[in-house]
Amino acid sequence: MGKTYKIACIPGDGIGIEVIAASIKVLAVLQPLFDFKFEYTDLPWSSEYYRKNGRYMPPLPEALATLRKHDAIFFGAVGDPDIPDHISLWELLLPIRQGLQLGSNVRPSKIFKGVKPPLAGCEVGDLDWLILRENCEGEYCGQGGRSHTGTPYALGTELAVFTRFGIERHMRYAFELARQRPRKLLTLVTKSNAMRHGMVLWDETFYDVAKDYPDVKWDKMLVDAVTIRMVLKPKSMDVILCTNLHGDILSDLAAALSGSIGIAPSANVDPERKAPGLFEPVHGAAFDIMGKGIANPIATFWSAAEMLRWLGEAKAADGLMSAIEHVLEHGPITGDLGGKANTEQVTQAVISALKQ
Amino acid sequence: MGKTYKIACIPGDGIGIEVIAASIKVLAVLQPLFDFKFEYTDLPWSSEYYRKNGRYMPPLPEALATLRKHDAIFFGAVGDPDIPDHISLWELLLPIRQGLQLGSNVRPSKIFKGVKPPLAGCEVGDLDWLILRENCEGEYCGQGGRSHTGTPYALGTELAVFTRFGIERHMRYAFELARQRPRKLLTLVTKSNAMRHGMVLWDETFYDVAKDYPDVKWDKMLVDAVTIRMVLKPKSMDVILCTNLHGDILSDLAAALSGSIGIAPSANVDPERKAPGLFEPVHGAAFDIMGKGIANPIATFWSAAEMLRWLGEAKAADGLMSAIEHVLEHGPITGDLGGKANTEQVTQAVISALKQ
Ligand SMILES: CC(C)[C@H](C(=O)O)[C@@H](O)C(=O)O
Ligand SMILES: CC(C)[C@H](C(=O)O)[C@@H](O)C(=O)O
Repeated sequence: MGKTYKIACIPGDGIGIEVIAASIKVLAVLQPLFDFKFEYTDLPWSSEYYRKNGRYMPPLPEALATLRKHDAIFFGAVGDPDIPDHISLWELLLPIRQGLQLGSNVRPSKIFKGVKPPLAGCEVGDLDWLILRENCEGEYCGQGGRSHTGTPYALGTELAVFTRFGIERHMRYAFELARQRPRKLLTLVTKSNAMRHGMVLWDETFYDVAKDYPDVKWDKMLVDAVTIRMVLKPKSMDVILCTNLHGDILSDLAAALSGSIGIAPSANVDPERKAPGLFEPVHGAAFDIMGKGIANPIATFWSAAEMLRWLGEAKAADGLMSAIEHVLEHGPITGDLGGKANTEQVTQAVISALKQ
Repeated sequence: MGKTYKIACIPGDGIGIEVIAASIKVLAVLQPLFDFKFEYTDLPWSSEYYRKNGRYMPPLPEALATLRKHDAIFFGAVGDPDIPDHISLWELLLPIRQGLQLGSNVRPSKIFKGVKPPLAGCEVGDLDWLILRENCEGEYCGQGGRSHTGTPYALGTELAVFTRFGIERHMRYAFELARQRPRKLLTLVTKSNAMRHGMVLWDETFYDVAKDYPDVKWDKMLVDAVTIRMVLKPKSMDVILCTNLHGDILSDLAAALSGSIGIAPSANVDPERKAPGLFEPVHGAAFDIMGKGIANPIATFWSAAEMLRWLGEAKAADGLMSAIEHVLEHGPITGDLGGKANTEQVTQAVISALKQ
């Protein structure tokens, strides 16, 4: 008898709702095939919920307690054309990431057969990265403020706070993951030349932690220079370890270089597994295409595969990834990948591939 | 009789020394051709100077007073394998940028005939950007600190300070420059969803300033999403307005997407022209190739052209750019561009092109 997992499902806003619905269909087919069971709790936390209740979710302790009763969280997207982003994010996604201390955001990128990447001459296997983005602190810790507002002397600050604890937890996880990959190569990304306080703590912590992983090769680059390497020497990198903001930027760049943000998945996890992981596509609510049924569901399918792997259902994860790869290679594919299919057609194609 | 300009020359370190020397040769030929004169002051401020004198340059007030006696500053690079970058930069380049209040860093990128860009199907004219990087404050203001160093509770901070004055000065310049370009399109880049204090001041200041430039079209993107647009829709952008750190990252990405960091120039200027501008290649000291005579001098030649334009010698700037374009198209070119030429061969080719 297979295991049963409790999944908290937060479709959220925009195309998040569409791609989570598509994924639930795929997961329904996957469960009997690989002998596991998902019990979903539907959480309607979203911009619509905010309009009704004046908040995106119940008070934080209650919301986190609800989430903690689950094995994993399956998240769509948050954002609404009528609500400032800094409100929607700081009321839903960021407090969950930080509240559950999901300290590492793992973002794989690779080139699939059938996907035409934008870099000339870049082929399957030439770009296969795992971006390890710190996920709870740094530039996104939320501190800062404003003074003299509305006057010519107005000023605003953003404080990035880096803690040895947060950095080390994240770095050890990056080394653990690098160790499991064939190339075992880790690239540390910081900006410790121009930013000489917290960023230097990153470098120093890295040198300490690296001593415990002598089997992992590593190098170090500044965040500006690493973009050049990503474009001109994609093969030279494997695992890319970076701060919250740097990882945010580099993972979008990686998604673009591998063909589309429409396939990019992410896993927000506590490396010590003291909280349920949160799995979500990297793309957001995508106001421009929401409600049209044309969103690419692959990023969310891949995120579901990462969720399965994290839960220990490696065979189901592999099975789902094979079906995704089959559909990317043979179609149908959505507009962002140069195809004409809609969300439902891609979903049905993945389901057919699973059944074969 | 043409004008005479006083140029403070700081070759600095590594390939900075090589590319400045190459540029001086080119400028020597350019002067009589376009009837202007450069009087150089050679300033040996560098890592070597630091090893001898315990500092990179004289005390700041004295150094700035020296620089202020000039019309422009021609800068190579700073950095030394044996000196931590955060020391070399904070002793030379950053105090000059900030001390002279060179509030805008202007970084053009485009695809030249003869240069093979990494993006498939991207051709001459498809990528023609001006990145306007704020240059005196924000993430590079230098504030922050460390506590509990050496303990498990160690922490470090980086404080980004954004002032209405600094933002507005920079934004007005961006609008002025956008207005002079055929497409008159400005893209504001911030991260005001996750960073909700100083970044929001950027957005608000932008909305205010934009009212004064109704002839400039604008749009707005988050820094992560803009990397996707740069890769997948390069034609859709013209002038890109961003913070110090974002501009640092995006300008390296732009250099890579236009073929090589070896051609990317930059102008550090006070939009109000109360201080001499500083012109430098975007690449740094490049420890891996320094001393070999193979550095690409084009980034520095282009920086010299920007210096001439800023000084009011538009014809000389155009003449130099034509010679650069001729050599990029017909060769010889350096290794970073796929050629085999050394610095001297490229320099002589530009000189020959000038003479024709
Ligand atoms: C929506 C936003 C806050 C979020 C982030 O920057 O973390 C998104 O860009 C992402 O990459 O997950
Ligand atoms: C050397 C470094 C401080 C500098 C910067 O980040 O400003 C460089 O990367 C640049 O882009 O001019």
